[in-house]
Amino acid sequence: MTDKRILVIDIGGISVKLSITGDQTTQETIRGFPTPALMTPGQLLEGVNQVATDWNYDVVSIGYPGPVKNNHPWREPVNLGKGWIDYDYEAAFGCPVRMINDAAMQALGSYRGDDMLFLGLGTGLGTAMIMNNQIIPLEAAHLPFREGRNFEQVLGKQGLDKDGQEVWFENLLATIKLFSYVFCSDYVVLGGGNANRIEQKDLPDNVYLGSNDNAFTGGILLWADQSPDHDIQQRYAS
Amino acid sequence: MTDKRILVIDIGGISVKLSITGDQTTQETIRGFPTPALMTPGQLLEGVNQVATDWNYDVVSIGYPGPVKNNHPWREPVNLGKGWIDYDYEAAFGCPVRMINDAAMQALGSYRGDDMLFLGLGTGLGTAMIMNNQIIPLEAAHLPFREGRNFEQVLGKQGLDKDGQEVWFENLLATIKLFSYVFCSDYVVLGGGNANRIEQKDLPDNVYLGSNDNAFTGGILLWADQSPDHDIQQRYAS
Repeated sequence: MTDKRILVIDIGGISVKLSITGDQTTQETIRGFPTPALMTPGQLLEGVNQVATDWNYDVVSIGYPGPVKNNHPWREPVNLGKGWIDYDYEAAFGCPVRMINDAAMQALGSYRGDDMLFLGLGTGLGTAMIMNNQIIPLEAAHLPFREGRNFEQVLGKQGLDKDGQEVWFENLLATIKLFSYVFCSDYVVLGGGNANRIEQKDLPDNVYLGSNDNAFTGGILLWADQSPDHDIQQRYAS
Repeated sequence: MTDKRILVIDIGGISVKLSITGDQTTQETIRGFPTPALMTPGQLLEGVNQVATDWNYDVVSIGYPGPVKNNHPWREPVNLGKGWIDYDYEAAFGCPVRMINDAAMQALGSYRGDDMLFLGLGTGLGTAMIMNNQIIPLEAAHLPFREGRNFEQVLGKQGLDKDGQEVWFENLLATIKLFSYVFCSDYVVLGGGNANRIEQKDLPDNVYLGSNDNAFTGGILLWADQSPDHDIQQRYAS
């Protein structure tokens, strides 16, 4: 594993979560702050600087709530403010930055071999898969589900509030069955804040509850130079 | 490129298409036969043996109309007979066989760099993408589109017959727009028999008509040991 001190930033719809690795003057390794409405990247930087003022880091990993290509946002985020595509993250943080889709970051941290589909149940619906040792970010949330609603509108916070937990969970099970086939997955991992509403015993075989800490693990793995998953990092980084 | 003589078999809903490489006693390099209703793998072998009796080959590539994992069908095909999962293809053909999803085979032969989505417009709807130099087979045909129909029912032969070509093409354009976003594609290639109904001038930027010959190219590339796309073959074969 690298000896770089890594700041991992996981941008969620409700809160921005931070974690730090390496020698620090504080015992705390996890902090966070509420996501400002229509947050801009400048507000992200400001929030991070306030909350992590006494943390020292050499590099930054960012889990971004939208599609990422070549270490940079490919589209503006749906649930945040504008200006994310053109922002210079390395200049702002003053160090190397690796950016990945937030669901893909948590998927990487959750990976246990074979072909995996990851569903992040939060404000929206994050989707990513790992197939043939390759991280594949997806924006499957925007596919139509039924009755004029897409998968995000049914399985995100909006759907949970509208349909109630029981129907939301039924729709989740139907989605898992469909997506497992569509994306040829050997197993499915559920993450995101609303995965806490689910108990492992209620899930079918080959569907597992992940931990939100897996986002931090994924952010750290983005900088791994030697690990059992080295191959994956290499391919991601290339 | 390899000097193996390669028999490429592309299993379509209407016909089985064969091509051959290397020294042969015949000038013909492409042949085919009508796909029997509910074809079994035994009938495929029989058909190939009849049609290709004077062709000599060292290895076989098969484009299979369903999901493939580890060089073998992962699910029985939707539009053919049964028995495809348990069949021993190498024993039947008496030589090494590499199998890949049929859309993925044509995608591989169509690949021109960056992140590509491939849509195969035939009896059904084949989908595959190449992202980060990795072939990712998809079964996106089975996702719901609208009015209780899935994408295959709208964009396959059934939809073309039911809706007529104009509406079919409008639905195709809507699907291209949606899928480009969902699968984070830089460009889209259209293949399959019904791509012949479309003119390049009617397509948006970054959408290209492929050639059905690309299926043969993809089948040959599965055995490539040195080519500009070597990296892709290696990852596929691993």
